[in-house]
Amino acid sequence: MHYPEPLSKLIDSFMKLPGIGPKTAARLAFHVLAMKEDTVLEFAKALVDVKRHIHYCTICGHITDTDPCYICKDERRDRTTICVVQDPKDVIAMERMKEYNGLYHVLHGAISPMEGIGPEDIKIAELLTRLQDETVQEVILATDPNIEGEATAMYISRLLKPTGIKVTRIAHGLPVGGDLEYADEVTLSKALEGRREL
Amino acid sequence: MHYPEPLSKLIDSFMKLPGIGPKTAARLAFHVLAMKEDTVLEFAKALVDVKRHIHYCTICGHITDTDPCYICKDERRDRTTICVVQDPKDVIAMERMKEYNGLYHVLHGAISPMEGIGPEDIKIAELLTRLQDETVQEVILATDPNIEGEATAMYISRLLKPTGIKVTRIAHGLPVGGDLEYADEVTLSKALEGRREL
Ligand SMILES: [Zn+2]
Ligand SMILES: [Zn+2]
Repeated sequence: MHYPEPLSKLIDSFMKLPGIGPKTAARLAFHVLAMKEDTVLEFAKALVDVKRHIHYCTICGHITDTDPCYICKDERRDRTTICVVQDPKDVIAMERMKEYNGLYHVLHGAISPMEGIGPEDIKIAELLTRLQDETVQEVILATDPNIEGEATAMYISRLLKPTGIKVTRIAHGLPVGGDLEYADEVTLSKALEGRREL
Repeated sequence: MHYPEPLSKLIDSFMKLPGIGPKTAARLAFHVLAMKEDTVLEFAKALVDVKRHIHYCTICGHITDTDPCYICKDERRDRTTICVVQDPKDVIAMERMKEYNGLYHVLHGAISPMEGIGPEDIKIAELLTRLQDETVQEVILATDPNIEGEATAMYISRLLKPTGIKVTRIAHGLPVGGDLEYADEVTLSKALEGRREL
């Protein structure tokens, strides 16, 4: 090994990130070596802070550094609608669109018999609890447009049938087999607009 | 801004690295969020340690966490030969080859009138100082095979002429216009083998 130990440790850390192989990791580590000390200390602090100060909103499950999150806290948002998504990144994609003004519920996953993920492994019980106070009039199912996402949407829709709450599924404006978080604003907006009752 | 502050700060930090745009930075930051706390703390520590504990060897200018570096310290290495390179990465590339057993001198740059870098801006004076004790019998100029590297090699070779020390230039086995650090082991080895006296 020809790298001084602190450098090879940093290369190892970079290699734990997705899509970063040994050559890129070395390039990044050398770049850090040439950065201003302040910038590097800031980077290190940002890493620690993300781990220490970001957690999940106890109401909606979105990532946040406050509790409840800024969305759940926002009095101007429509509390009669909850948009159900699989992942915090999906909330961020929806918010980027700037057309949805309701609340969210993050499932943190989707039902997948193949991977042994059942309804009890994702935040469905928490969704039911939120629906008990009768403020919510519509649940928009915005799970991913793939097998697991569809199965999850169907499962939740059946579960909510007896409650009489309107349950809609975001339209297939999204490319099937795709990932909601990578959808562009227009597609997302079209998909939301074309939502239908389940 | 839809990211919680600690997350957007981490995204900003990732974006300061070369070749990392906003999308990749976000993907990396989310990955950090999902990493074990220990792994993240290790990453943060590695960043700080690289900045705090890596410096330049006071003899050869290579990066090191000891002083002198492990190469300058190694009694088994041939102290009669110094290989002059532009960058610490070049030392690492040479060492990877496992065929060179002499010492190094890192110039930390190359002469470049275009960029206003003169001989006094790189570690040429330090090289002359090292040559004064008369142990060194050969100086191998392994600067990059491009305009700046060639100019630097020519400058040093003229400077050393009066000392009588043998000055050789690494052969053009290296693709001209290229960067020594990206050369493969075989090319580097051939280039070293075919070196000629200047
Ligand atoms: Zn929330
Ligand atoms: Zn050294």
